[in-house]
Amino acid sequence: MATGKTYEESAENNDHLIRSSDSQHPANLIPELCRKFWTLGWVTGTGGGTSIRDNDLVYLAPSGVQKELMKSEDIYVLALSQQTDPKKRIYLRSPPSLKPSQCTPLFIAAFTKRNAGCCIHTHSQWAVLITLLLEQLPSNATLFEINNIEQIKGFGRGYQKQGNLGYHDTLRIPVIENTPHEEDLTESLEEAMDKYPDTYAVLVRRHGIYVWGETVHKAKTQCESLDYLFQLAIEMKKLGLSWLSDIA
Amino acid sequence: MATGKTYEESAENNDHLIRSSDSQHPANLIPELCRKFWTLGWVTGTGGGTSIRDNDLVYLAPSGVQKELMKSEDIYVLALSQQTDPKKRIYLRSPPSLKPSQCTPLFIAAFTKRNAGCCIHTHSQWAVLITLLLEQLPSNATLFEINNIEQIKGFGRGYQKQGNLGYHDTLRIPVIENTPHEEDLTESLEEAMDKYPDTYAVLVRRHGIYVWGETVHKAKTQCESLDYLFQLAIEMKKLGLSWLSDIA
Amino acid sequence: MATGKTYEESAENNDHLIRSSDSQHPANLIPELCRKFWTLGWVTGTGGGTSIRDNDLVYLAPSGVQKELMKSEDIYVLALSQQTDPKKRIYLRSPPSLKPSQCTPLFIAAFTKRNAGCCIHTHSQWAVLITLLLEQLPSNATLFEINNIEQIKGFGRGYQKQGNLGYHDTLRIPVIENTPHEEDLTESLEEAMDKYPDTYAVLVRRHGIYVWGETVHKAKTQCESLDYLFQLAIEMKKLGLSWLSDIA
Amino acid sequence: MATGKTYEESAENNDHLIRSSDSQHPANLIPELCRKFWTLGWVTGTGGGTSIRDNDLVYLAPSGVQKELMKSEDIYVLALSQQTDPKKRIYLRSPPSLKPSQCTPLFIAAFTKRNAGCCIHTHSQWAVLITLLLEQLPSNATLFEINNIEQIKGFGRGYQKQGNLGYHDTLRIPVIENTPHEEDLTESLEEAMDKYPDTYAVLVRRHGIYVWGETVHKAKTQCESLDYLFQLAIEMKKLGLSWLSDIA
Repeated sequence: MATGKTYEESAENNDHLIRSSDSQHPANLIPELCRKFWTLGWVTGTGGGTSIRDNDLVYLAPSGVQKELMKSEDIYVLALSQQTDPKKRIYLRSPPSLKPSQCTPLFIAAFTKRNAGCCIHTHSQWAVLITLLLEQLPSNATLFEINNIEQIKGFGRGYQKQGNLGYHDTLRIPVIENTPHEEDLTESLEEAMDKYPDTYAVLVRRHGIYVWGETVHKAKTQCESLDYLFQLAIEMKKLGLSWLSDIA
Repeated sequence: MATGKTYEESAENNDHLIRSSDSQHPANLIPELCRKFWTLGWVTGTGGGTSIRDNDLVYLAPSGVQKELMKSEDIYVLALSQQTDPKKRIYLRSPPSLKPSQCTPLFIAAFTKRNAGCCIHTHSQWAVLITLLLEQLPSNATLFEINNIEQIKGFGRGYQKQGNLGYHDTLRIPVIENTPHEEDLTESLEEAMDKYPDTYAVLVRRHGIYVWGETVHKAKTQCESLDYLFQLAIEMKKLGLSWLSDIA
Repeated sequence: MATGKTYEESAENNDHLIRSSDSQHPANLIPELCRKFWTLGWVTGTGGGTSIRDNDLVYLAPSGVQKELMKSEDIYVLALSQQTDPKKRIYLRSPPSLKPSQCTPLFIAAFTKRNAGCCIHTHSQWAVLITLLLEQLPSNATLFEINNIEQIKGFGRGYQKQGNLGYHDTLRIPVIENTPHEEDLTESLEEAMDKYPDTYAVLVRRHGIYVWGETVHKAKTQCESLDYLFQLAIEMKKLGLSWLSDIA
Repeated sequence: MATGKTYEESAENNDHLIRSSDSQHPANLIPELCRKFWTLGWVTGTGGGTSIRDNDLVYLAPSGVQKELMKSEDIYVLALSQQTDPKKRIYLRSPPSLKPSQCTPLFIAAFTKRNAGCCIHTHSQWAVLITLLLEQLPSNATLFEINNIEQIKGFGRGYQKQGNLGYHDTLRIPVIENTPHEEDLTESLEEAMDKYPDTYAVLVRRHGIYVWGETVHKAKTQCESLDYLFQLAIEMKKLGLSWLSDIA
């Protein structure tokens, strides 16, 4: 707030919050990320979303837009500290004629419970297929597990822990069941975070995935690494190869 | 018609109809969409097409051009109100040395019967494979059905209805049989629209798909969501997973 | 030759033959096409090639270059009328420190035997896989056949014939066996052209495909349509679907 | 060193080593290559790496960066002749706040043992899947072999040998076992180089591949050709086709 105004004082819907010539400003970065995610097939047909937190401020892609065409002016902004009532969301800046994303409470969960700096939600087909394959299993249908693949080293060891997973560590991503209304996922997402405190991602059955990280860099590269592992796991399944192995 | 001329008065093949510095003008938007569709594999080898309606005016991609190289000057324009004889198409603007698309009567069906603002025709391989798989079934070979996948929420509930499909709703896309001449599909396309009044798309066996929407935004995002679901459904088939499930 | 010089008179390796500000000049078009083909996976790792004929002049991509980085200065030029001895190729223009493509006699066969204006050679994996699948068959291993797919209409009916194939027509692409030296394919390519005078393409077993057309437009769109059909045919094979059907 | 300074004399971390207006300078070329490799899925989620040698100087991509966003300023530089103690790496230029790549000793092995000018490390899924399929075999699990595919001609015959492999030659790529710490691969990589002196690549089980060549051109096109062959081999496996055949 270089202007010295409080949010409430600044006129015209706080548009200064999303205007910056810095390419790394969240309001510029979210559209750039979404263009990239569209080419990766993660946010097809207005699906998915992305949010960045800068201290108390949260920047959010809106609902229902073509993600590869998103502009800074389409970004919602809210202050975490003002969200005292989960039923009554308060926005500092709302783009005219757009709707806020139903993902908002899920992004907020990653920010408040895990101190994340960025959270990405994709409808990646590989993620959906993993949840469908797990659904067929008699047991363990709520956990994706893979080990002994180098790309696993792309993940941090967990919340407030130093360093990354090792090659022999098993990466575990919990799966929660989908709900008709996306905001209703919040409770089970938070439960999964509590049950698997070190995970940086939660799969949503027949829907997609939420991935976060301390920074945009970490959220994005963890999301890429996961998608790589999901695609690899689907190909392994087609070729009759196991996701888990007991290499020393 | 800001110039105040009627179409008939304006000289030189009504080229003013396709000249605009507005990137959202249909004559600029159709080439941009077609470039994008070419990269998605939807309009390979001059296949497929796109049309946008602006009130009474209809803008159409021509036949037989490389879709990723299309220019505004290649666009046909007609007035819906002038198409009284389906055997005698009247164009306000015809590009020199090109041929009108055989898809024209099918696009017009979406505009007149469903009040669509945009109609997209693709030769997507996923769409073709879905129709080939359905053809193998003893029953139900003329309807693609899928449910309990989040991306289904990318579709409107139907013609003149408010809101979108829900997660548990079954998306149904009718399939019509292909004909040697594309314009001969019109009758069966219209029959499918009558039989499934809420559908926003019709699959054409061994050929591709027609998808429409009230706006360019809706037609394009519904087309993307469908292609996502078709690709997912093919992968599900390879992995032995069912398209329909009875999750509550 | 707007300068009025003969090829022999013009100095400096006839570089004027490959210098033009016209984006449609063959020396500009070949690099643009090769960039596009590289993104399609057709000319990976210096594989494949492209040639355009303008009356008596033939423009050729060189051997061994990274196709997505090719420049006009890399283009070879020869005059068809000067190629009287197939063992002694005469070039009007040779780029310094490059080697002519081994595909040259094959491109020339398409130009002289079929009056083609453009010939494209790809190492498309779909094309290679088709030839491998055919090799497993006890009979008919030298002919790819598919019918009743709309994209077949993307092909002309044949040499010196008017119009395109119809939906119910069977597209037939002959397969020739690969040889250690690419120029040694010339004889069997010409035999395949004689045996299938209406084909616009010849598959080379375990190698790729040659596709031509009367114009750059036709060669490129036929090459795209074929690649679409090959990819579709591989997916059909994985899903247990037949390439030929007897729909009326 | 056009400035006439020795490395030690030049101030400010030898930044002049990575500043050049020449697009072919290693410090410009590595970021351009990495952008391309990211789109090919080779360096997803900060995985993989690339190094170029210019006489005694070695330019290296750093650890842990988003490869499609890399800049010249992110490049490490070292002098081969100064690396007398493998436990104590000496860098001429280290980017502030980045870490050197664990791949460094592996790149150096290619430079010193094989006089390579460029070495590329990818996490290509096709490469990983090949190593997983080989792992299932009772024998020969440490060697990928394929023959009678044209793309094999994209590889040189071997270290200090003239010419390229022929169509009937068998391409052999050794596989080494992965280790928790990437630098610990060095010994087995060097052993594989000794056992297969003519190979230009070594697969790393469940990890990826290292590919080199005398020049950037050769390393890159060999890496592309290998990835093509790995993808083809996976598709062949799905279709029940053998990687080796005894065509004369």
